[in-house]
Amino acid sequence: MSNAVVLLSGGLDSVTTLAIAQSQGYQCFALSFDYGQRHLSELDAVKRLLTAFSDVKHKIIHLDLDQIGGSALTDANIDVPTQPSSGIPVTYVPARNTIFLSLALGWAEVLSADAIFIGVNAVDYSGYPDCRPEYIEAFQTLANLATKQAIEGKRIKLETPLIHLSKAEIIQKGVELGIDYSLTVSCYDADRQGRACGQCDSCRLRAAGFAEAGIADPTVYQR
Amino acid sequence: MSNAVVLLSGGLDSVTTLAIAQSQGYQCFALSFDYGQRHLSELDAVKRLLTAFSDVKHKIIHLDLDQIGGSALTDANIDVPTQPSSGIPVTYVPARNTIFLSLALGWAEVLSADAIFIGVNAVDYSGYPDCRPEYIEAFQTLANLATKQAIEGKRIKLETPLIHLSKAEIIQKGVELGIDYSLTVSCYDADRQGRACGQCDSCRLRAAGFAEAGIADPTVYQR
Repeated sequence: MSNAVVLLSGGLDSVTTLAIAQSQGYQCFALSFDYGQRHLSELDAVKRLLTAFSDVKHKIIHLDLDQIGGSALTDANIDVPTQPSSGIPVTYVPARNTIFLSLALGWAEVLSADAIFIGVNAVDYSGYPDCRPEYIEAFQTLANLATKQAIEGKRIKLETPLIHLSKAEIIQKGVELGIDYSLTVSCYDADRQGRACGQCDSCRLRAAGFAEAGIADPTVYQR
Repeated sequence: MSNAVVLLSGGLDSVTTLAIAQSQGYQCFALSFDYGQRHLSELDAVKRLLTAFSDVKHKIIHLDLDQIGGSALTDANIDVPTQPSSGIPVTYVPARNTIFLSLALGWAEVLSADAIFIGVNAVDYSGYPDCRPEYIEAFQTLANLATKQAIEGKRIKLETPLIHLSKAEIIQKGVELGIDYSLTVSCYDADRQGRACGQCDSCRLRAAGFAEAGIADPTVYQR
């Protein structure tokens, strides 16, 4: 059985990615980050979600990205927008996927894993630069040069099963795989109970995805 | 004045890199990591060293790499070798430079920095994959795709002023720039007072560098 590290945020996309990795026969090692995010309730969602998966190891790494700031998600002084904006929104966290993938790479090497799964999506997304296929390709090139195992001939493959799917297609895929999306938290400004604001970019993309998929939206909203 | 983030470990190479960055006119922001390293006294060295530099901002990010392990530097159960070994030694920390550079990239973006300086060296080094020029080039390519600023046209340049220098040349350069190397800690197994073991790979490379440079070795050894 091959090992895979799966980045798991507690949101809709990452849990679907985990289910896909498991359906492909990987022994999964889920990696989450307590990085000073505003929506810390997503980590409670991770724990609830993992009870529905058998045999997934889980690690939460603490990371002080609020020391770096520069994002509405890590700086309490920057509000999460409630209206669509042009360009890359202030919820962008500087270098976040690079940071998360680099830590995943380290763990993957220790586990002799064959793959790292990340639920990036370049269709129904916020325009973040580190979700695009060309970014993922560049990280793959880096990973092939970065580790001792790679030098010795064992490469780790970045798997992005959602990258070209619409949000509706992701939801349909996840429902087929038995995911209970009521347990997930996608909202950038979720409250302590994990209830969604319904107004942020992430909430809008998610709600539109359920509507397009013709599946009742199970999200618990704040009002 | 341009901003630059400088990775600063408290060792000989990184402090020389900081002095070079400052001599080039950059406003320097030094970044260190408390990552569960065995030789935590290097962070005391960082603080001592910085008293000799004027106007350098400093940040220490806590990072639980001992949760990941897989290295003699982050796993107390793996001894630091006291003899040269063939291949990449067990002091290699999985994906360490990728992790450090990704966090530097995040901070650099917040600072609107023009450069990230890292004191990697591919001449007198331990053979770590993430110190080689091809690795640095791949990270540069990634950085050019990873950030919001890069998409908007502002790229961050990775600067590696030591990469092709011998250890002796690095020491000569640092002495010219006024560095007091007695304050630095290079040893992988330094004690709480920062005294060097004299036997590990890093100690051997450092001692040979001073010998070749014809400069008295100021290192304080444990015996």
